Amino acid sequence: MKLLDPLFRGSACQAVFSDAATVQGMLDFEAALARAEAAVGVIPPAAVPAIEAACRAERLDLDGIAADAARAGNLAIPLVKHLTARVKADDAAAARFVHWGATSQDAIDSGFVLQLKQALLAVEADLDRLIAALARRVAEHRHTVMVGRTWMQHALPTTFGLKLAGTLDALLRQRERLAELKPRVLAVQFGGAAGTLASLGDTGLAVAQRLAEELELTLPATPWHGQRDRIAEVAAWFGSLTGVLGKLARDVSLLMQTDVAEVFEPAGAGRGGSSTMPHKRNPVSSAIVLSAAVRVPALVGTVFSAMVQEHERGLGGWHAEWEALPELIGLSAGALAVSAELVEGMEVRADTMRANLDKTGGLIMAEAVTMALGEPLGRLEAHKLIEAKCREASEQGRHLKAVLAEDERVLAHLSLTDLDRLLDPLNAVGVADAFIQRVLERAGDH
Amino acid sequence: MKLLDPLFRGSACQAVFSDAATVQGMLDFEAALARAEAAVGVIPPAAVPAIEAACRAERLDLDGIAADAARAGNLAIPLVKHLTARVKADDAAAARFVHWGATSQDAIDSGFVLQLKQALLAVEADLDRLIAALARRVAEHRHTVMVGRTWMQHALPTTFGLKLAGTLDALLRQRERLAELKPRVLAVQFGGAAGTLASLGDTGLAVAQRLAEELELTLPATPWHGQRDRIAEVAAWFGSLTGVLGKLARDVSLLMQTDVAEVFEPAGAGRGGSSTMPHKRNPVSSAIVLSAAVRVPALVGTVFSAMVQEHERGLGGWHAEWEALPELIGLSAGALAVSAELVEGMEVRADTMRANLDKTGGLIMAEAVTMALGEPLGRLEAHKLIEAKCREASEQGRHLKAVLAEDERVLAHLSLTDLDRLLDPLNAVGVADAFIQRVLERAGDH
Amino acid sequence: MKLLDPLFRGSACQAVFSDAATVQGMLDFEAALARAEAAVGVIPPAAVPAIEAACRAERLDLDGIAADAARAGNLAIPLVKHLTARVKADDAAAARFVHWGATSQDAIDSGFVLQLKQALLAVEADLDRLIAALARRVAEHRHTVMVGRTWMQHALPTTFGLKLAGTLDALLRQRERLAELKPRVLAVQFGGAAGTLASLGDTGLAVAQRLAEELELTLPATPWHGQRDRIAEVAAWFGSLTGVLGKLARDVSLLMQTDVAEVFEPAGAGRGGSSTMPHKRNPVSSAIVLSAAVRVPALVGTVFSAMVQEHERGLGGWHAEWEALPELIGLSAGALAVSAELVEGMEVRADTMRANLDKTGGLIMAEAVTMALGEPLGRLEAHKLIEAKCREASEQGRHLKAVLAEDERVLAHLSLTDLDRLLDPLNAVGVADAFIQRVLERAGDH
Amino acid sequence: MKLLDPLFRGSACQAVFSDAATVQGMLDFEAALARAEAAVGVIPPAAVPAIEAACRAERLDLDGIAADAARAGNLAIPLVKHLTARVKADDAAAARFVHWGATSQDAIDSGFVLQLKQALLAVEADLDRLIAALARRVAEHRHTVMVGRTWMQHALPTTFGLKLAGTLDALLRQRERLAELKPRVLAVQFGGAAGTLASLGDTGLAVAQRLAEELELTLPATPWHGQRDRIAEVAAWFGSLTGVLGKLARDVSLLMQTDVAEVFEPAGAGRGGSSTMPHKRNPVSSAIVLSAAVRVPALVGTVFSAMVQEHERGLGGWHAEWEALPELIGLSAGALAVSAELVEGMEVRADTMRANLDKTGGLIMAEAVTMALGEPLGRLEAHKLIEAKCREASEQGRHLKAVLAEDERVLAHLSLTDLDRLLDPLNAVGVADAFIQRVLERAGDH
Repeated sequence: MKLLDPLFRGSACQAVFSDAATVQGMLDFEAALARAEAAVGVIPPAAVPAIEAACRAERLDLDGIAADAARAGNLAIPLVKHLTARVKADDAAAARFVHWGATSQDAIDSGFVLQLKQALLAVEADLDRLIAALARRVAEHRHTVMVGRTWMQHALPTTFGLKLAGTLDALLRQRERLAELKPRVLAVQFGGAAGTLASLGDTGLAVAQRLAEELELTLPATPWHGQRDRIAEVAAWFGSLTGVLGKLARDVSLLMQTDVAEVFEPAGAGRGGSSTMPHKRNPVSSAIVLSAAVRVPALVGTVFSAMVQEHERGLGGWHAEWEALPELIGLSAGALAVSAELVEGMEVRADTMRANLDKTGGLIMAEAVTMALGEPLGRLEAHKLIEAKCREASEQGRHLKAVLAEDERVLAHLSLTDLDRLLDPLNAVGVADAFIQRVLERAGDH
Repeated sequence: MKLLDPLFRGSACQAVFSDAATVQGMLDFEAALARAEAAVGVIPPAAVPAIEAACRAERLDLDGIAADAARAGNLAIPLVKHLTARVKADDAAAARFVHWGATSQDAIDSGFVLQLKQALLAVEADLDRLIAALARRVAEHRHTVMVGRTWMQHALPTTFGLKLAGTLDALLRQRERLAELKPRVLAVQFGGAAGTLASLGDTGLAVAQRLAEELELTLPATPWHGQRDRIAEVAAWFGSLTGVLGKLARDVSLLMQTDVAEVFEPAGAGRGGSSTMPHKRNPVSSAIVLSAAVRVPALVGTVFSAMVQEHERGLGGWHAEWEALPELIGLSAGALAVSAELVEGMEVRADTMRANLDKTGGLIMAEAVTMALGEPLGRLEAHKLIEAKCREASEQGRHLKAVLAEDERVLAHLSLTDLDRLLDPLNAVGVADAFIQRVLERAGDH
Repeated sequence: MKLLDPLFRGSACQAVFSDAATVQGMLDFEAALARAEAAVGVIPPAAVPAIEAACRAERLDLDGIAADAARAGNLAIPLVKHLTARVKADDAAAARFVHWGATSQDAIDSGFVLQLKQALLAVEADLDRLIAALARRVAEHRHTVMVGRTWMQHALPTTFGLKLAGTLDALLRQRERLAELKPRVLAVQFGGAAGTLASLGDTGLAVAQRLAEELELTLPATPWHGQRDRIAEVAAWFGSLTGVLGKLARDVSLLMQTDVAEVFEPAGAGRGGSSTMPHKRNPVSSAIVLSAAVRVPALVGTVFSAMVQEHERGLGGWHAEWEALPELIGLSAGALAVSAELVEGMEVRADTMRANLDKTGGLIMAEAVTMALGEPLGRLEAHKLIEAKCREASEQGRHLKAVLAEDERVLAHLSLTDLDRLLDPLNAVGVADAFIQRVLERAGDH
Repeated sequence: MKLLDPLFRGSACQAVFSDAATVQGMLDFEAALARAEAAVGVIPPAAVPAIEAACRAERLDLDGIAADAARAGNLAIPLVKHLTARVKADDAAAARFVHWGATSQDAIDSGFVLQLKQALLAVEADLDRLIAALARRVAEHRHTVMVGRTWMQHALPTTFGLKLAGTLDALLRQRERLAELKPRVLAVQFGGAAGTLASLGDTGLAVAQRLAEELELTLPATPWHGQRDRIAEVAAWFGSLTGVLGKLARDVSLLMQTDVAEVFEPAGAGRGGSSTMPHKRNPVSSAIVLSAAVRVPALVGTVFSAMVQEHERGLGGWHAEWEALPELIGLSAGALAVSAELVEGMEVRADTMRANLDKTGGLIMAEAVTMALGEPLGRLEAHKLIEAKCREASEQGRHLKAVLAEDERVLAHLSLTDLDRLLDPLNAVGVADAFIQRVLERAGDH
């Protein structure tokens, strides 16, 4: 699938899930295990240097490990064999102590958690970058009035600042969630063959403690070979991130329609051109994000499905995680990186936004008139009256004001000046600015 | 779908999502809105009693609302019409102020959040009940040795206490997550037609603040009509809960196999009988939970998919939530209630557990011997030797000890007494008890 | 979930999945089984009338069955008990032969297949109705030129007829698939407790054959208690139908945007109104269909996930089908019914379609000019030239023709008359009509 | 993700989706297009050789194409640029006619269909191999009696032949479905920029016809840029295949449990060993298949979700297919290849199967006694009696026969010889053999 990597996974965090990095994650576990066991006195300190020296992915035969994994059923079994052979070549005595007391899943899960830790760092940086870009854009457009659209119809005016503030607010919640989950999910896996650390006798817990320190990971209360809620929590976080970004991309793609033309993705050489239509400017970034938003939810579902794992080590469910997690993280992180670029560089056509407010000949301001008549006439009565007037204006192709100015029930309560005021979109964005202020304050807190 | 409600949704929280409760949720919003607006001075206080009095689901024509919703596209539009008519019948003046300044989605989302709040209370009670039952069982079985199984094969001994402690630990994490998410997701929805509260002029924020207080919900920084990460977070929490329970149910169903017979679901009149096989005792509770574990992940995926909502109010995505959320909560809560019953009443056959440890003629203790020989021979060398001995024992149908006792390489390092000790499963559960202690302490903290 | 039934499940086929109909499906199986066994000589013919008479859902206590199912784990066990008691009240001798030789799953699966058969009839009628409506619309609009849009941007002209013909073509394929799958999936389930019909001795196959004839269902080669590919095939068919309808609804909702205004959903009292914005006309039908298109794929995934069923009868997977299937069929059938109404009643604004073609000032015809220059200049060279001209026209706010008419490289190969012809959208719909003809012929074949 | 390719995607069809093969698929389309257009007279025949010569993946810079795709939004745009440059280097005149009249999606979709065609060939071969292996195994074990298990409990006897015949029957249905779908889905994509072939004037259809012939693909009635039901049909077929295989793998993994030991995966060097437990033999093949069965359903759901594509070319939905399809086909084909190996090489322990039938002390034969007593006593009465006897036998640890032989109600109708016959599992497999015969005949038909 490399051909589409630059398109779908153009994030710094992609490198974290390369084949070499996957192997290195397990090797980092093995090296730390040796150090921890030496420190606790389980293995001779003299064995450590040779083990550490061999724990470099570039020193192992990755193709061989991959081929052997097809028979062994996981990567750790052949990795330990290859690693032991390599250590033995340097120091036969040390080779005895490779992977001492650990089980395959200890290496695979801990290795993944180490990769995840790096991935979260990269993602956090892009998240902060997007949050910063959005905060700037929100501030810039806090008074840029535009059409608010519900059910994909013109509804009432809003501001572009408030629209973006909604996404900013959601991303700030993502940051909160991330802070909450990190200490919980960045946990070492170490339980030995059946989760009891039986082969380490009484020293199991001391080794586990030291191992967690070596790897700068949380020591969980129990090994979690069969308990995958941490993995699911990670998947859900990325799923939520992707959903938030997907909503933004959907909006951008709708606003960039030729028929709307209010917002454009950043232009650039070779960006969004068509092979046959020279005038087109395709929303490539939105497509990438929306594609992730189609794919990631199912991958989240996969990870949740895979939680049903048997006994002390699952069959199939655990295996299902190995590619699904990197896949969903890669897509989500790619969508994040592309979204940051998009928000930083997007062109906002405030004039077109203003012009589009008039497309309905005043109908977009109908609610304001309804509300103004609501008190004297009652909300429902006013609603019916204005609904009829809107229909009339629409059918006759006239501006709503002209139609209202003919109606005596309207004029009984509203002057022409009132109508002018009520029908001006710039007067009709309510407390949008106050909402924006609340979000910018939240953003500033961080 | 009522026919299967008792089977799949036998939780107290099911009533929270009845038709009447759904309507009542929206009505509670409308009543609180009237109170809040009167308090802030937006509507006359005199209008409040009539509105409050009408805000009872049993006073409205639910079938009529349902029928009208098919044309209106949501429940709130007909609900507001029916409600206004009812208020008008009592107090025409008050009827003018029904739903003042709000939009359909304000009522629907806030109504749902109020239902969710009740559902979480019910679920939390069942969660605490299950946690307490598990903690008792873990304590009871902290020294009950049994076969640890990986890849669905006998691996090494473990204890039934440690097995259950894993689930307990995961549920304690669920409780942590629940505490974190509640203030974030139990947020009022109030933004008016385009999220700006335009029709309330300057008073929008004050009304919103008061409304949140009335409903005892969080006031979010911005309306979240198009930002559905809160909804997704709820879905994910229930998804994770279901996965944890599914793992437990899978294990129980495997342990209850006629061929294993270590654990049995609670018996009871009419429980788990077969229509044709009088001797059978079906794991009905496990089936219910496993069924939820098959269905819920896809529903979680649906909710994440639905996050991509257009502009200020989505088309299709929002609609997709209305049934998917109650469905997934109902299934998950049903699985939780059934799991609590299961853990409280399950029969544990400690003697069969002990007997099954011997099924492999000592092979299950092979790792202990391997480890003991690992230091003198090297881990890989010892592994190869014992692997051969295991094959020999297995092929000849002999006990592993007998085979080992014939091998000089073994006897060079281990006496027969050593072998006896090494091959005794009761000596081979490592730090299982220490892990259990850590979890019970965590459980006690709550 | 009844409150939202009229909105989401407004199809004739919904009644097929009512509680009573579900019970009746199983009872129809039981009655036919009695007749078949009497015919083959397995049970006394005298037992049949009393069994048949009792096999009416309205004669049984559905609430009681539902409550008992929670303990029994399925509906058939309590149903058989209630049914036997009812038969016994009339004819004690006959009661001995109720459910003779069958297992719960025989009744549940066969009952579902009988419901499915009815559902497919209802769905087929709606499908034919939609196909007919589309064929009329395609014929009506085979020359209605409109903007073709790719990546949500104006691309080239097309016709509204061709746009609809794509959906028509897809639905004709759905009809083909339906014809192929019906004999395969409308198969009786009859295998007895372990799929061997052991309790019927040598007569098993004869009874099965007769039972299939009684129910007008296919007799499969083997019982399919644990083989659920038929169920998955049904789910996939409805999933594909929903996807095809979702694409149509997405297009309608995009075309109905205030900013596009080319197609409108049928109007009607109470249809698509907003609670606060009297001028709005919400695409309610599209919302219903799009909502189904968000939900159904995950339900399809659930059914595929559930295929992994254990041994001779599954645990959890089978249970997961019971609600998921009716749910997905109901949503899909509801979407179909609403789509038929939509296509029959939608307003098409051919004049707006024509007007929107000019929105880009001729850019939409750029490809035609590129192609015309492609032969003399080479495709890529022509592409580059016209791309630059498009940018120029766009930036200067001028019509493309004016810009092209100034360029010597263009004029070297094209006259002004050529440009006029090349820039006329009506000349630029290629073989759209021929494609339409091909589809209408296919539609006529049926 | 290459590291896990040998484990999860060890099928001949994996090569079909390599990066080079993906590019070659598009190039094959481009070459055939040139030939077709030359044949119809649209482009000069002299242009064809240079285009054909350049249409070799190894002649293009794949990394460059991948990098450019990130900006262009798809692979075809940079591919056409690179290809045109390469042709130009050889024959500047020919370069003008590269990709003439086609659009990116024509190349991408047709290229994928060409890959799919090859993939289906490879998969069909493996399917036939598995069908043949199963047919042999079914015949071999048509009289091998074993425990039939429902709800994961011992139920009644069945035969191993019948168990496998169920899977065989399902796979024969998969073959039927494959034959039905191939002409429908192996369809060329050719519509030009907006699906009208506008740039080819009147010759569009003739070129399309010739192109389809060149590629040996079906010419569909209309271009299907936005109609993705064919893609969904393919996904569903692989989803169903994976489900059928998942059911088989689940059963094998259950039968291979140390506690059951009736069936074993083929042994082999390095196959299924554990890094720490030398005696273990892990069901690696089952794990691979079950892992696919967890992952594929969600990918099927993704493809169905992605069907909702906008207008004449979708945004996001189409992009979502590009990796999801190869991913799901690769996993499914990998599961198929591994299943063929598994069935060919699995060890069946008929003696253990026979021994396990006695594990319940005759309870497994309870239904036979119930049926025998059903006629004199009535089915429900007999059921109650035998249920009590089963409980008695179970509680007292005695064989069912001994308990029955003490009961006068039993002895009133059954002699001891009757009991012996009724309690012999070998007499209790009903028409298993007849069912097997029906499937083997179906298998032979092909």
